[in-house]
Amino acid sequence: MHKELLEDIGEKELIRRLAEFMPKNQVSDDCAFVKCKNKNLLVNTDALVENVHFNDDSISAFDIGWKAVASNISDLISSGCNKIIGINIGLVIPPKTDWIWIKSLYTGINRALEHFGGVILGGDCSMGKERIISMTAIGTQGKIKLRRNACKPKEIILTTGIHGLSKLGLMIKSKNVFDNNIFLTKNLINKSLQQFCQPKLNPKFLKKILNARPNKSVKTIGCTDSSDGLFQALLDLSIESNCRAIIDYTKIPKHKDWPQGNKWDEYYFFGGEDYELVFSLPRKWAKNLLCADKTITEIGFFLEGKASVEFKNCNNENLLKNKSFSHF
Amino acid sequence: MHKELLEDIGEKELIRRLAEFMPKNQVSDDCAFVKCKNKNLLVNTDALVENVHFNDDSISAFDIGWKAVASNISDLISSGCNKIIGINIGLVIPPKTDWIWIKSLYTGINRALEHFGGVILGGDCSMGKERIISMTAIGTQGKIKLRRNACKPKEIILTTGIHGLSKLGLMIKSKNVFDNNIFLTKNLINKSLQQFCQPKLNPKFLKKILNARPNKSVKTIGCTDSSDGLFQALLDLSIESNCRAIIDYTKIPKHKDWPQGNKWDEYYFFGGEDYELVFSLPRKWAKNLLCADKTITEIGFFLEGKASVEFKNCNNENLLKNKSFSHF
Repeated sequence: MHKELLEDIGEKELIRRLAEFMPKNQVSDDCAFVKCKNKNLLVNTDALVENVHFNDDSISAFDIGWKAVASNISDLISSGCNKIIGINIGLVIPPKTDWIWIKSLYTGINRALEHFGGVILGGDCSMGKERIISMTAIGTQGKIKLRRNACKPKEIILTTGIHGLSKLGLMIKSKNVFDNNIFLTKNLINKSLQQFCQPKLNPKFLKKILNARPNKSVKTIGCTDSSDGLFQALLDLSIESNCRAIIDYTKIPKHKDWPQGNKWDEYYFFGGEDYELVFSLPRKWAKNLLCADKTITEIGFFLEGKASVEFKNCNNENLLKNKSFSHF
Repeated sequence: MHKELLEDIGEKELIRRLAEFMPKNQVSDDCAFVKCKNKNLLVNTDALVENVHFNDDSISAFDIGWKAVASNISDLISSGCNKIIGINIGLVIPPKTDWIWIKSLYTGINRALEHFGGVILGGDCSMGKERIISMTAIGTQGKIKLRRNACKPKEIILTTGIHGLSKLGLMIKSKNVFDNNIFLTKNLINKSLQQFCQPKLNPKFLKKILNARPNKSVKTIGCTDSSDGLFQALLDLSIESNCRAIIDYTKIPKHKDWPQGNKWDEYYFFGGEDYELVFSLPRKWAKNLLCADKTITEIGFFLEGKASVEFKNCNNENLLKNKSFSHF
């Protein structure tokens, strides 16, 4: 197939082409202009680096674009964002990159924005040795603030969905050999690939929380997303809020075909990139929410005490010896 | 000297250390929270890449930090920003990077922010093969919009200062051999190094423009910065506003010790990274401003016609054959 390398296209033409992915009023100026009356802002940056966060063998340019948007906007949602304004993109690419790769990336970015809200506001593009997408998302703060440090003892711990799927999707995509004796159902494989390639978010989460609120005086609740895995999310909440998280292993929501065993528990708790929300609410509020939304699950509660994550009804004693991942 | 490599420090500890450069209320959460009542926003991203925009031989980590802030905030100022809110940093670094390099970078960033306004709001940090600083700056839009496409025929073209100094500073730093017969004065060398390493901006520019405004009905004026060189700034204004820029070569403000000759004209017009403002105003407004501020210079005017940059009173015919630089 005919390749159009960036070094042949040139910087000016590249900028012109990228501008076609943006709303017309953003183009031509030194920086982006955003109408924003009477609102406080939430701002988040995530950098995706080739061979650290993605490579050509396991994920397409379209899906990288989608995931870059999803991971950024997930952080806004988990802070209580009620409206996504848009994103700025710092793109670094080697001169030998084919234009079709960048076009697919930006198409994936725009498809995700159509899904979750917001537009491309602007950005910068530069040459470099490896491909990097540094994305900054901006949204407005809704009526209540969701924060990592706002969990309280006696509150119920809840989550919006199933974990581990994205990790399994990555393993299937990168043809990692796992236990050959395990049979994976077609449904589990499809769900996992979907979750890895084009994860869905919970853009209506704040609305659901507000609708279930029994007491309007509460303005902040404890929340984060599971981008670094369910265990890390629980650990972050317990450390920042300084409470003990007690998790009932039997209540953890798993895909109906999820295999049993230590390895599968590890994928479940430490996999990451599922972008589900992990949060805590006072008992009555939690009860209202659980009645109104069957996709949300109660998985434990917080107690006073030294920050920790403890499991009950769990046979896998080694689970907690594992630590969250680090890129370094 | 004892080195502390990032791979030994680990990601968690790095994040903790970087948090010390941020205001306390920003730390610990998924994303940054910004109070922003009743204001429209300006957002700008610039990516600085090792061996494309900087290398250890010619610039220190402190100065890279300062310049990253300066180039970003310059774009906000040249759009009519009246208040810098802050910046988000997407940092990519090889695991063998010494902590002292990052510490100096962030110290430079914070020193520049103290100078120009704003704070570090948040960011993300990841491993990569080469060092990259992708910075997104956010500010609020002032009373009038400064835009590249708002120049009009018959308006006076002005600039806030001297060009070429940063280019000369880079050449001195990187020990590029130029004409050995030229004697550079100490004052010119010092000014050039200062402009290259820690460029100053014009944070009060909008105020000066507003104070000189004879007619409050005008809400937009044509403006950009000279980050890609004076010639490119003029070309951008003329293309986006669709007018002919006529530049009087004899009016161009040069450092008193700037040497003569074709090469030096080239450094002057195509050097880049001086972050002066290049803009146009109706005659009366320009006159008021020139009376009130002696650092601002009239250098030409716009005419109706096909977008172009033309020089009068200039002997250097080859000057316009040169084109602006491209990173690809």
